[in-house]
Amino acid sequence: MTDLAATRGLFALPDGVVYLDGNSLGPLPRGAVERLRRTVEAEWGERLIRAWNECGWIDLPTRLGDRIGRLIGAPAGSVTVGDTLSIKVHQALASALEMRPERRVILTDRGNFPTDLYMAQGLVETLGRGHGLKTVEPEAVADAIDGTVAVLMLTEVDYRTGRRHDMAALTRQAHAAGALTIWDLAHSAGALPVDLGGAHADFAAGCTYKYLNGGPGAPAFIYVRPDLQNAVRPALSGWLGHESPFAFDADYRPARGVARMRVGTPAILQMAALEAALDVFDGVDLAMLRARSVELSERFITGVEASCPDLALASPRDPEMRGSQVSFRHADGHAIMQALIARGVIGDFRAPDLVRFGFAPLYNDEADVDQAVAALSDILATRAFDRPEFRTRGKVT
Amino acid sequence: MTDLAATRGLFALPDGVVYLDGNSLGPLPRGAVERLRRTVEAEWGERLIRAWNECGWIDLPTRLGDRIGRLIGAPAGSVTVGDTLSIKVHQALASALEMRPERRVILTDRGNFPTDLYMAQGLVETLGRGHGLKTVEPEAVADAIDGTVAVLMLTEVDYRTGRRHDMAALTRQAHAAGALTIWDLAHSAGALPVDLGGAHADFAAGCTYKYLNGGPGAPAFIYVRPDLQNAVRPALSGWLGHESPFAFDADYRPARGVARMRVGTPAILQMAALEAALDVFDGVDLAMLRARSVELSERFITGVEASCPDLALASPRDPEMRGSQVSFRHADGHAIMQALIARGVIGDFRAPDLVRFGFAPLYNDEADVDQAVAALSDILATRAFDRPEFRTRGKVT
Repeated sequence: MTDLAATRGLFALPDGVVYLDGNSLGPLPRGAVERLRRTVEAEWGERLIRAWNECGWIDLPTRLGDRIGRLIGAPAGSVTVGDTLSIKVHQALASALEMRPERRVILTDRGNFPTDLYMAQGLVETLGRGHGLKTVEPEAVADAIDGTVAVLMLTEVDYRTGRRHDMAALTRQAHAAGALTIWDLAHSAGALPVDLGGAHADFAAGCTYKYLNGGPGAPAFIYVRPDLQNAVRPALSGWLGHESPFAFDADYRPARGVARMRVGTPAILQMAALEAALDVFDGVDLAMLRARSVELSERFITGVEASCPDLALASPRDPEMRGSQVSFRHADGHAIMQALIARGVIGDFRAPDLVRFGFAPLYNDEADVDQAVAALSDILATRAFDRPEFRTRGKVT
Repeated sequence: MTDLAATRGLFALPDGVVYLDGNSLGPLPRGAVERLRRTVEAEWGERLIRAWNECGWIDLPTRLGDRIGRLIGAPAGSVTVGDTLSIKVHQALASALEMRPERRVILTDRGNFPTDLYMAQGLVETLGRGHGLKTVEPEAVADAIDGTVAVLMLTEVDYRTGRRHDMAALTRQAHAAGALTIWDLAHSAGALPVDLGGAHADFAAGCTYKYLNGGPGAPAFIYVRPDLQNAVRPALSGWLGHESPFAFDADYRPARGVARMRVGTPAILQMAALEAALDVFDGVDLAMLRARSVELSERFITGVEASCPDLALASPRDPEMRGSQVSFRHADGHAIMQALIARGVIGDFRAPDLVRFGFAPLYNDEADVDQAVAALSDILATRAFDRPEFRTRGKVT
């Protein structure tokens, strides 16, 4: 079993930086540098087109899918990697709606990430069959599940507040009402134990550039429950989801299994970096990772509440109800985050008033937490965030 | 103006290889090695999340789109980069069909790449409104354009034979019949001058890992005619196509212009490699590149016809009717290509019987052509392709 104190050395963290934004973009795993060099110079450069077979490029989506599957409670052969989370949400939703043709409601909550909502809105309009996206408060989801719901589509961990849904209970309730479920694991995968199989989730999707540290623009993944896979019609029926892509047939016939959710040519450079990033998780006990995450976030909340009375906790106080991030509200949140970043404490800001901090025990420790608390309390006590340079700059996930 | 004899040195071609498969995967531009190292180590590693703004990551799709636009006759602001060609074809087709709601025919030809056909089939089924994909022989396209056609969707250069459509004439004819056009430029972009603007093409899409040398899994691009852009409803309405992605609004509102065809988080590592690959085209005169391509392919055809009587030319004999590749038919094509590759002459095979050779004057020259002809004629004369090891191995795009 890997000691979490040892994994920090596997990342190339810059000196003087306390990085609490791995929930936006995970840091560079040292192994990714060498892995990319090999993929670029030895594989692309030397083997050229032959690398697709010789170097296993063509199977990377499947191979990486199985490795991610281990982290989210998904059996081998139920996850494939590619595209972006937006595209994977579209695929899951298009498939799920076709499996409930008599129903018209997509139920979601205000804690879902906007692109999930936008992709649903776009699909509803494309279908033109009177589907509706019903968006309720996170606390109201359970009561809104009824026999009109075709699909319950939620992000397990709220990207703003870190509030965590009970995946197993909501999935059970959705199934009892005859609905299917789509779980967005953007803020779950690699951050806490997920048990898609145990929860009987139908579909899931996630990104790999946050807690999985796959790098900027790393590909997404999609999970389809094994017994549903061959009943799914891929709406985005690309050639690499064909049962025989290199026959170049004129007609689409879906591959067996989750491979039918592949679409186009896989992004090999991104996948090479991701493969190295997943090496870091080898031997990591996710229950231990989760326990460390709770320790760090509890220490952070306790410290901030003791020294920053102007900050209001926006995350659930009960760690069981949280993912691996903590958010506070402040009307000057944007300027406060800019001031923190100027001191080397990197979190991020989410409009209108949230400062957000992610805790990733693969590389964060108590010293990070204590430095962040000290910087934050000093910035608030001295109103350092009032300086004009902190009132203008933009910020991007 | 760049001398084409000088650009060969900008690629890391392995010793002893004659590479005639740049129409599948372009070789490694030397500049991509350093550019990727910088993006990974200095940008991702050192700047972390801040690189999205500081290093211009967030604008890469637009910046690269404009650079590709210069190579395909598209004005600034009409091309954006991202996703895969399959996804970009879906976006173009979904948009175009909505703009011709009273029509039901998508006209294409048997020379179109399968994923274009598959994506159309998938969309037709998703829409469920009785659209049909009508697939004719390449020579029959012009006669099949009539008032029932919503969209004419063609690959300009046939991936198997290299046969080239007359984009301007077919677009004119489609418009006269009230149809829109989608041009797949997979085998055109970077290979020959394309004039989307002059042809009044409505939509175009292409990939960047062939003649543009962007690397394995490099992103695709999409072009939308400037005066249509703000009338297009993005079917894949992802957050980065939103007019204000970082407002995290609950409702989708498309960005102005071609930016609305962006979907999810861009694949930054792939885009970094692509950016370096596009540097090679700086100062390259595409008319001169095209003239060199014709010289090389003519030399190849003449040489093969003189020395390999068993090979039947599958490409048009008139260079004006070809793209930048040449294909020959032979019942033992697969084994012949394996034997060629074993001698360091890399082309590829397309079922059932085509051996295919791409000519990219950025790095190919007469010596390559002559070596390929000599190897091919020797393999055929000695029936070297009959050896058992050439009868089994697989081959990928």
